[in-house]
Amino acid sequence: MTPSRTTQPPADLVITGCTALVHDDQERIGFVEDASIVVRGGVIEYVGPATGATTRGPATGAPGTGAPAAEHIDARGQVALPGLVNCHTHAPMVALRGVAEDLPAEEWFNDVVWPVESNLTPKDVELGARLACAEMIRGGVTCFADHYFSMDTVAAVTAESGLRAHLGEAFFSSQGPEGRERSLEFALRHRGAAGGRITTALAPHAPYTVADADLAATAGLAREHGLPVHLHASESRDQTDNSLARHGVTPIEVLERTGLLGLDAGVLIAHGTGIIERDLPVLERATGPVAVASAPRGYLKFAWPTTPVRALRRIGVPVGLATDGAASNNSLDVWESMALTALVQKSTEGDPRWLTSRQALHHATLQSARAVGLGEQIGSLAPGRRADIVLVDVSGPHTQPVHDLAATLVHSARSSDVRTTIVDGRVLMRDRRLLTVDVAATVRELAERLPALTDRSHGQRIQEYDKPPG
Amino acid sequence: MTPSRTTQPPADLVITGCTALVHDDQERIGFVEDASIVVRGGVIEYVGPATGATTRGPATGAPGTGAPAAEHIDARGQVALPGLVNCHTHAPMVALRGVAEDLPAEEWFNDVVWPVESNLTPKDVELGARLACAEMIRGGVTCFADHYFSMDTVAAVTAESGLRAHLGEAFFSSQGPEGRERSLEFALRHRGAAGGRITTALAPHAPYTVADADLAATAGLAREHGLPVHLHASESRDQTDNSLARHGVTPIEVLERTGLLGLDAGVLIAHGTGIIERDLPVLERATGPVAVASAPRGYLKFAWPTTPVRALRRIGVPVGLATDGAASNNSLDVWESMALTALVQKSTEGDPRWLTSRQALHHATLQSARAVGLGEQIGSLAPGRRADIVLVDVSGPHTQPVHDLAATLVHSARSSDVRTTIVDGRVLMRDRRLLTVDVAATVRELAERLPALTDRSHGQRIQEYDKPPG
Repeated sequence: MTPSRTTQPPADLVITGCTALVHDDQERIGFVEDASIVVRGGVIEYVGPATGATTRGPATGAPGTGAPAAEHIDARGQVALPGLVNCHTHAPMVALRGVAEDLPAEEWFNDVVWPVESNLTPKDVELGARLACAEMIRGGVTCFADHYFSMDTVAAVTAESGLRAHLGEAFFSSQGPEGRERSLEFALRHRGAAGGRITTALAPHAPYTVADADLAATAGLAREHGLPVHLHASESRDQTDNSLARHGVTPIEVLERTGLLGLDAGVLIAHGTGIIERDLPVLERATGPVAVASAPRGYLKFAWPTTPVRALRRIGVPVGLATDGAASNNSLDVWESMALTALVQKSTEGDPRWLTSRQALHHATLQSARAVGLGEQIGSLAPGRRADIVLVDVSGPHTQPVHDLAATLVHSARSSDVRTTIVDGRVLMRDRRLLTVDVAATVRELAERLPALTDRSHGQRIQEYDKPPG
Repeated sequence: MTPSRTTQPPADLVITGCTALVHDDQERIGFVEDASIVVRGGVIEYVGPATGATTRGPATGAPGTGAPAAEHIDARGQVALPGLVNCHTHAPMVALRGVAEDLPAEEWFNDVVWPVESNLTPKDVELGARLACAEMIRGGVTCFADHYFSMDTVAAVTAESGLRAHLGEAFFSSQGPEGRERSLEFALRHRGAAGGRITTALAPHAPYTVADADLAATAGLAREHGLPVHLHASESRDQTDNSLARHGVTPIEVLERTGLLGLDAGVLIAHGTGIIERDLPVLERATGPVAVASAPRGYLKFAWPTTPVRALRRIGVPVGLATDGAASNNSLDVWESMALTALVQKSTEGDPRWLTSRQALHHATLQSARAVGLGEQIGSLAPGRRADIVLVDVSGPHTQPVHDLAATLVHSARSSDVRTTIVDGRVLMRDRRLLTVDVAATVRELAERLPALTDRSHGQRIQEYDKPPG
């Protein structure tokens, strides 16, 4: 349909002159040169060659599209891609970035992070989450899946930052049934908040901290309310071995027997580096959507194995990119997760041909969108999708020349090459200037709270991490 | 000695307000807060607390030092560290960045890189090297060890860029004795060039492409002229296995028997991922300095093992950081090599406590300086050392808060956080603006040459890469 030349209201945003990353109907990645993108009502209305744009407009029309627009971005020399999705993080933990270094997981949890987390206040969570949002916007992340405490605060910070988020209030069985109820109450109250930018999940911590009966009750609530579940499972091989030694089943088998693999709204499993051969048929016969979030940097740092991406892809499980919290990963840099996924997969599989740059971009786009239950809304630059877009500068000396743009993006470009970050058509960073977060004030206020936050003299911790078996 | 207050000429450069990375007499890394650095004649004259600076000067004195200075940099919120050293690269290969992706090493060499390199002209080398210098300056690299062809051109570009470099003209035995003679002639003619910023090495390609007699003759020339040798050896486990199958000795044993482990000026071994247990006593009994340059990104990409850093450290061999060429590594980002060295070492050794951030910084500073034979000249911010300094911004949201500055630098900061790069006291980049290289013009000129450079229709290649054994 050709819109009327006179009655069409101006587009909210038109981007011109970029190279646009698109997916064909086989989900193969391609690039459209000298592309224009037209955004209206937070949605992508058009993406394609400049000449194919929607309408010829008055003097406000953006060059190269003919479309009238309230806002125009000249993106020559830049690549437009779907905003990155951080499929598993604990955003407020940026307050603990660097607090527990060069330690095995058990000591990291029991001696530092869980003692420190017993000091956490909603104000710490607020400041940490705000700083995290700044970091993610600067790194081209437009949506994050968060699993933490004081999530009302994280929801409020998400709303103010302009980001999209998939939020869950974490709970342990040690909190009694109130933990699970609070998680449900949070999920129901915030579902669809921030103009639809916030979606929610039930968020049991993990099979080793949440009893089977509690997981089964969670699955029941998820079914009843049409909610997804986001939890840690098979984080490491030690956790799988512990589970086998104590219960005779793997954490993935626990998910199956408690009904979590049969939810209409799906389950998002964080890490899964301890997924073993016998788990694959279990995941394959799942009757609800299952996805795994992989944060490869932290696995290297803990000397864990990595997520078995190739095996999961073989059975059709999407693997989304993630960073985990900054206390283990030291950053919320999903761009780095993309590059490391490619590199670590080649190395682990002993196959330089595996996990090509285009495959890495598929993980970063459609697979990550599916992992957070937004496979039809984001993850692709296409008409009808939400306008979550990042513009990446590839003119720098470290990204030139370009022989293979997919390789340039995955292996040469960095999160710092993101110039502009857009969510729902709203510009959150333009030419690297943040428009919704005051970093200096946040850093200043957080700094004053760090001595109290990191005090461990009380000898308490919020949980006990399993020792490795044997 | 207190200099006279009236006769002292102004310092060339004073940096104030930074946190300075220093080494104590046990080579442990520490940080001096609110430090000043005074540079005179290309040399660091003072580094330490602001109040301890050398002299009280007139109105031109930089705040916080009292030292009069021709140039002053206010570096509040930034960390000063010794410039990074890229201990093994082929700078001009940035022209081939992304040209051969997701391939095993044998196909990468035989099907793409060596055919393409048969097209190389000095002009391609010049443009590639110039772009490489821009990338390295922007990434905080102040010195690079280059091993390539048309090295007269690389020396000229080095001189114009302001960088320090350790250069060697590569040769194969297939070139006859002329290859070796050209490498010697280059090394003698350029030694000490660019005001002392250029040092040189003899540069046989590798034991699998240079015959033992040729290596022995090279060792003889090195001894005669007091030159070091820089070569590839035991790059991969396949190379070691091939060498054992054909000659009954490892590439490291070839270095020993040809005299390359007994040079006063030392030998720099690139990669060494194929160094095996029996090589360790060979390296330990070397009578001349031996160092290894490690470029971990490319090893992941080729699915090679990584350099056995822990074993090499146990026998006292310095391991310098490197990127190799951009055709395999996709960047010349030594900062990333530092982070990956820490991550991959933890993972490979199965030990999260190994290769701490401070150890990574020791590799990046003193060990890398030693690897390129400049252990007394660079690698540390200390009086008498050449003023090769980078200033890194740690105020960004991805580097805040700072609980552990060493971890912040290694695991959170990125090469893009380098604000200012200084070599021999000369500022080559200030606030991310390059002062010695025109990137846009270089990219433009290089782009025109790429079709001819990447043409493989001629069916030629400069060498033949060994197939894996068996």
